[in-house]
Amino acid sequence: MEKKAIIVGAGLVGSLWAALLAKRGYSVDVYEMREDPRQAGFIGGRSINLAMSTRGWKALQKAGIENKIREVAIPMQGRMMHSQSGELAFQPYGKEGQAIYSVSRGGLNIELIRIADQYPNLRFHFAHKCLGIDLQAGVAHFEDTRAGQRLSAQAPLLFGTDGAFSAVRRSLMKLPRFNYSQQYLEYGYKELHIPPRADGSHAIDKNALHIWPRGQFMMIALPNVDGSFTGTLFLPFEGKANSFEQLQSDEQILSFFQEQFPDSIPLLPGLLEDFHTNPTSGLATIRCYPWCYEEKALLIGDASHAIVPFYGQGMNSGFEDCSILDELMEAHQDDWSTIIKVFNQERPKDTNAIADLALRNFVEMRDRVADPRFLLRKEIEAFLNEEYPEDFLPLYSQVTFSHIPYSMALQEGFAQDELFGRILAIEGIEENWKNNPELGEVFRQWLREREGGR
Amino acid sequence: MEKKAIIVGAGLVGSLWAALLAKRGYSVDVYEMREDPRQAGFIGGRSINLAMSTRGWKALQKAGIENKIREVAIPMQGRMMHSQSGELAFQPYGKEGQAIYSVSRGGLNIELIRIADQYPNLRFHFAHKCLGIDLQAGVAHFEDTRAGQRLSAQAPLLFGTDGAFSAVRRSLMKLPRFNYSQQYLEYGYKELHIPPRADGSHAIDKNALHIWPRGQFMMIALPNVDGSFTGTLFLPFEGKANSFEQLQSDEQILSFFQEQFPDSIPLLPGLLEDFHTNPTSGLATIRCYPWCYEEKALLIGDASHAIVPFYGQGMNSGFEDCSILDELMEAHQDDWSTIIKVFNQERPKDTNAIADLALRNFVEMRDRVADPRFLLRKEIEAFLNEEYPEDFLPLYSQVTFSHIPYSMALQEGFAQDELFGRILAIEGIEENWKNNPELGEVFRQWLREREGGR
Repeated sequence: MEKKAIIVGAGLVGSLWAALLAKRGYSVDVYEMREDPRQAGFIGGRSINLAMSTRGWKALQKAGIENKIREVAIPMQGRMMHSQSGELAFQPYGKEGQAIYSVSRGGLNIELIRIADQYPNLRFHFAHKCLGIDLQAGVAHFEDTRAGQRLSAQAPLLFGTDGAFSAVRRSLMKLPRFNYSQQYLEYGYKELHIPPRADGSHAIDKNALHIWPRGQFMMIALPNVDGSFTGTLFLPFEGKANSFEQLQSDEQILSFFQEQFPDSIPLLPGLLEDFHTNPTSGLATIRCYPWCYEEKALLIGDASHAIVPFYGQGMNSGFEDCSILDELMEAHQDDWSTIIKVFNQERPKDTNAIADLALRNFVEMRDRVADPRFLLRKEIEAFLNEEYPEDFLPLYSQVTFSHIPYSMALQEGFAQDELFGRILAIEGIEENWKNNPELGEVFRQWLREREGGR
Repeated sequence: MEKKAIIVGAGLVGSLWAALLAKRGYSVDVYEMREDPRQAGFIGGRSINLAMSTRGWKALQKAGIENKIREVAIPMQGRMMHSQSGELAFQPYGKEGQAIYSVSRGGLNIELIRIADQYPNLRFHFAHKCLGIDLQAGVAHFEDTRAGQRLSAQAPLLFGTDGAFSAVRRSLMKLPRFNYSQQYLEYGYKELHIPPRADGSHAIDKNALHIWPRGQFMMIALPNVDGSFTGTLFLPFEGKANSFEQLQSDEQILSFFQEQFPDSIPLLPGLLEDFHTNPTSGLATIRCYPWCYEEKALLIGDASHAIVPFYGQGMNSGFEDCSILDELMEAHQDDWSTIIKVFNQERPKDTNAIADLALRNFVEMRDRVADPRFLLRKEIEAFLNEEYPEDFLPLYSQVTFSHIPYSMALQEGFAQDELFGRILAIEGIEENWKNNPELGEVFRQWLREREGGR
């Protein structure tokens, strides 16, 4: 087979995947609907900051760009919870030295395009909108939106990395027996800007992911290298109280923030303008199956598995797709029939698991992080991980700081929920639990049962 | 508001709904992609027979067509199971005198069109393919496929009754935050024809739904008034054994039938021709939400909730949509803002429940009906229903012979599963259970717990 591929979509996953394919000697043509962000700049206003974690870094390393991104990534060692009265509480994500990294989507995308563009066997075609794919023939149809002309391209391999509203997936959807689901949350989100202090420094602790958890809704903020933070308000679209529907006038918006997030008001000098200018966007989970057409076309990233942002794993899971495919190329020597078959069979259970975990984590972020028993559980989790490093890795760490398949992590998570049902039922566990011998007993009993069950 | 409506789709639900609307004085225009079946005949070959039950009859009564259809409906009082060795076992669906009714889809559709067409304020437009809807303006675009011309129609109310592949739903899908899911079974189905005997009589018992349950697959047959049966084979599309993929040559088909359904071979003189000629079709569950656009457009029937055929409730649930809407019209005096809002809020939980029940029933039909313990349960269910008519109605009867909302029936079904977990655990329950005092004790205990829980 000719080593030639078309990639539709030059977002994060598309440009990374293009670089990995080009590195392996493929002739690659990448078509992207938008203008080149290196010239046009990156259009913001509705992009939640990225939280790069272990799975993402691995793929960046494969592309040879890890160190360059690390330089502009801000480590966030934990969550900083802001109570209604403005009290702060910090909860670490993992062990000493572990962190997730705040990265700008636009900046990362531009770097990925730059690294990919260094390969002479790779060509970017910006301002090319995909109109549809003839899957059988391997022909993709585009509109060159600058020239106002239509054109077609053909290759034995075609990848759809064109995101949640994928045009490539729309062509797959016309096939018989294509399974598809798009489910929206009742919540929307809106970006709000927290500028740097006058001296250019960050206005709040820059090494944390800030959360204002309010039960049924929340605000978060992630640091940027320029000293600012990107804040995001997550709120129901509709409802009689605390909904976007109810926040129309300046007065309504201000009184809502004064009541719910009083400590954020000095941080948000452009609150009203941001609120009126920035769109209120929806949050969807998208699943489909199969992800491929024969050995000719494959969906990667959000195009086949878009998730809600609450586990910080959307980009990380898309990048992990690329790592896995790269390893399959290595193992199967460019035998795409096998590579696509194996990927299509094995990967969806993991992306379905992270989709479920991300939905679960919304409740955790907006509600449970404010619950003392949840924080107690997190402390005991860290303790057990320290005491029994071989036998206990908290779910959050499995997802964020490991390469354990998401589906295994989800199963482990259920078992850990069961364990903590028992632990938190121990009488007086709240006090002096480090010296409570029952804790270790309950844990070892749980472990024995699990080993017995294996 | 002007009492004027557009209906897209003149299938079973569309033509019934058109009649009910016209009866209430609305000016109705019905657009249908296909030719008029009164002239063109009904195109068969992939339509499973219908099993009309209580919910369906109610809607037909409202349309004034119940008696006419009863004349051409064949009562099926129960399931007739055919074992591999050709033994027969009969299991009644309900009480003495209760039955589901085999009805021809084509014949029923033609009768519904006839009754609707008697209203002077109703017009059918056949061979009009819907190209899309401008929801805001209430304008529907069509292609008159005979004349090869495009035209548009406008009305304050628009109903999408255009089935599982609804064009109206495609327009709703373009709205922000539309939830949608289509899930296919790994199984396909193929229609096979069982002709009448030489004397015109039915070749097997006509008052039963025949099932050849074989664990992972099955064949069924429903009687027709002309003495024939419509057989349907349900089989996995793919797989190394017992799949459509493996049934290509005449020899493969014959040896599969000889092994699995030997008693059916004399019944199927055209087996090989049918098998090669009739398509292998897929089986999907389709769910979406919302079902409406403001108070202007509404999906009804398969367009918003297509289900697999294994509970015989696809048409019945679509007809129940019509009954419910008719009652809402009565209650809310043509206040469509309220009618559509209430229907969109209340009805989906019930159609989701019947979708789940239909998926569950596939396992029951192809596998559990051959299990002696399942048959024992069915006998005990009938006995309990007789002994405690106020307190126990089997799930199947709730779905089939009542108007209990599907979602309530599904919940009752879970409670009944729990009850039978206890009953079938009674020692020696298999023998002489009618005189086992424990049976009544367990039942009354279950009843007390449920009443306590209310």
